[in-house]
Amino acid sequence: MSKPAVTYELLHEDKKTGARRGVVHTPHGDIQTPVFMPVGTQAAVKAMRPEQVKEMGAEIILSNTYHLFLRPGHEIIRKAGGLHKYMNWDRAILTDSGGFQVFSLGKLRKITEEGVAFRSHIDGSRQFLSPEKAVEIQTALGSDIMMAFDECAPYPAEREYIEDSMRRTCRWLQRCKDAHHNTEKQALFGIMQGGMYKDLRKESAERIVDMDLPGYSIGGLSVGEPKELMLDVLDDCVEYLPKDKPRYLMGVGTPDYLFEGVERHIDMFDCVEPTRIARHGLAMTSHGRINIKNAKFEEDFSPLDDECTCYACRHYSKAYIRHQFKAGEMMAAMLLTEHNLHFLIHLMAGMRKAIEEDRFTEFKREFYEKYYGDAEY
Amino acid sequence: MSKPAVTYELLHEDKKTGARRGVVHTPHGDIQTPVFMPVGTQAAVKAMRPEQVKEMGAEIILSNTYHLFLRPGHEIIRKAGGLHKYMNWDRAILTDSGGFQVFSLGKLRKITEEGVAFRSHIDGSRQFLSPEKAVEIQTALGSDIMMAFDECAPYPAEREYIEDSMRRTCRWLQRCKDAHHNTEKQALFGIMQGGMYKDLRKESAERIVDMDLPGYSIGGLSVGEPKELMLDVLDDCVEYLPKDKPRYLMGVGTPDYLFEGVERHIDMFDCVEPTRIARHGLAMTSHGRINIKNAKFEEDFSPLDDECTCYACRHYSKAYIRHQFKAGEMMAAMLLTEHNLHFLIHLMAGMRKAIEEDRFTEFKREFYEKYYGDAEY
Repeated sequence: MSKPAVTYELLHEDKKTGARRGVVHTPHGDIQTPVFMPVGTQAAVKAMRPEQVKEMGAEIILSNTYHLFLRPGHEIIRKAGGLHKYMNWDRAILTDSGGFQVFSLGKLRKITEEGVAFRSHIDGSRQFLSPEKAVEIQTALGSDIMMAFDECAPYPAEREYIEDSMRRTCRWLQRCKDAHHNTEKQALFGIMQGGMYKDLRKESAERIVDMDLPGYSIGGLSVGEPKELMLDVLDDCVEYLPKDKPRYLMGVGTPDYLFEGVERHIDMFDCVEPTRIARHGLAMTSHGRINIKNAKFEEDFSPLDDECTCYACRHYSKAYIRHQFKAGEMMAAMLLTEHNLHFLIHLMAGMRKAIEEDRFTEFKREFYEKYYGDAEY
Repeated sequence: MSKPAVTYELLHEDKKTGARRGVVHTPHGDIQTPVFMPVGTQAAVKAMRPEQVKEMGAEIILSNTYHLFLRPGHEIIRKAGGLHKYMNWDRAILTDSGGFQVFSLGKLRKITEEGVAFRSHIDGSRQFLSPEKAVEIQTALGSDIMMAFDECAPYPAEREYIEDSMRRTCRWLQRCKDAHHNTEKQALFGIMQGGMYKDLRKESAERIVDMDLPGYSIGGLSVGEPKELMLDVLDDCVEYLPKDKPRYLMGVGTPDYLFEGVERHIDMFDCVEPTRIARHGLAMTSHGRINIKNAKFEEDFSPLDDECTCYACRHYSKAYIRHQFKAGEMMAAMLLTEHNLHFLIHLMAGMRKAIEEDRFTEFKREFYEKYYGDAEY
């Protein structure tokens, strides 16, 4: 057996919670975990230059198989020398499999054992994705971590639907593994499904862990279910996953879910939340979320967050960013995106330090009191 | 008399054409001339961070009285500590007077001797600008160079209209001068008008030069008239302006007009052209203008311009930028704006060097052959 492309090293576990401080080694550098991964859906983190994303400390970004398959097409990116070169990002890249996007298309797609037929959201053309195709695309993209082609089932859903879907996802994972040959440079992660049914989660975990993959993600959570239910299911999910592999909770990017996930021994997260809300004028600050459109910021010449050291906070006031937003200038999205990504990346750095010092619970409490308990904004 | 805020130093004149190589000294640093000034209409150069504009060598940018008066309001910018601090730009700023924008409103404005009543393009509210108000606003903004409040008359227009308008603009200039007191930190430039009537241009020049201002601009050209007529009038205009003051040709930013202007002894230029066309997918290159939307760039992995050293050309291919444009990503505007501004700023640097070496005509010919004569694109 050759050395796998991606390995996980556990450095420390928080004494009280067991929260994990580790490192994911990839062909494009190490990733300190727990980590939040900024999303660059269409081969760009929206409104950001890659150097800016690097400067704030990001060691890995996520990009999307579905979008890049449809536009510009993975063959073009392969010819360009792969996604890293194409988009000028020399650190690690994780690509999702397209499963989540395809299943989000609703009536525009049809699932069979072979794969999913769907219509492109861009031009309505007929398209088909399968486990083999998803691996082919991600091989062309050259991501360090490729995700298995799965079905992210909706919530709520009948047990029978979830059971069928989960088992098909497990069969698809085996097909992904069989189709994946570039194992020394790209790692394939499996995805656990099973909806909110704990026994199905367990079955899913056993099936995918059996395939001995370099990493596992938990899919199908944070899809509309109540937070308590999500956390209850998550508690169980993590138990079933091996300790020596990285664990990735998909689609999670608000501070509370990041804390809850880390507390439950998750290592990796991604979400469009910080970049998307930035384009709607929302900023995450150490005192909670603020809406820059608010009239009270019209003459507020202080930065978005007094405690923040990001580019936006070092150089611009709320009054300026509010003006840029109201005036329809890209500058608003550029500054708010920078700030929100910086906020989450530094939040994760704070969590890592707290784990190292066995004070994760205290760090979480201090953060919650300021972020969620303060009614200043 | 105290030292004026802005002075001009003539370094060299091209032996053949008399094109001027000089320096404009301002409270926020020196400007090497001839210079192209990027436009930051609403207190931001669209899609650019100020540091990026500085890095490419810009020593002055232009911002707009009309826009900033209406939104966010000059009082807010005054409270923020002035426009430089507000927008994080520590080099020189020139602000136009709002005249051009107000007169562009057409039927939404009414001109009297006192000033111009108009309706805001943002909320339809009634507004009023006068010479005194334009100076008050620009004083609050704290620009290094403020422009007089003028009427930029349309083309074509009757002689009687142009004559009345030009004389009123001259009376308004005197009122601007009388209202302007912060002369040690901010310079007031006069604007020559007179349409395409050479004797009216002469009269306008004599009246404004008589007021002994630190700089003069030529307004009312490049407003739709044929190029030959524009250049013919420009030839005369320049003759009437003093040699020891900077000359600014307003609203000009295509390579040919920049060359023609410099050849006619103009020192300063501004235009939204490079930034606006960038947002429409157009790039200026040493081989002419290209449209990144063109299908032939789909698999073109070379930079926008092989001879360019800008950030976009160092890191990205035409194929990537085309994809970003087609995908509706801000990255396309960010990269094309960077490139186009870099192109014009470096073109001006090339002109300055050519003047120093008395080979402006040769430099112009070489550029034209590649930019306008090459049918490669």
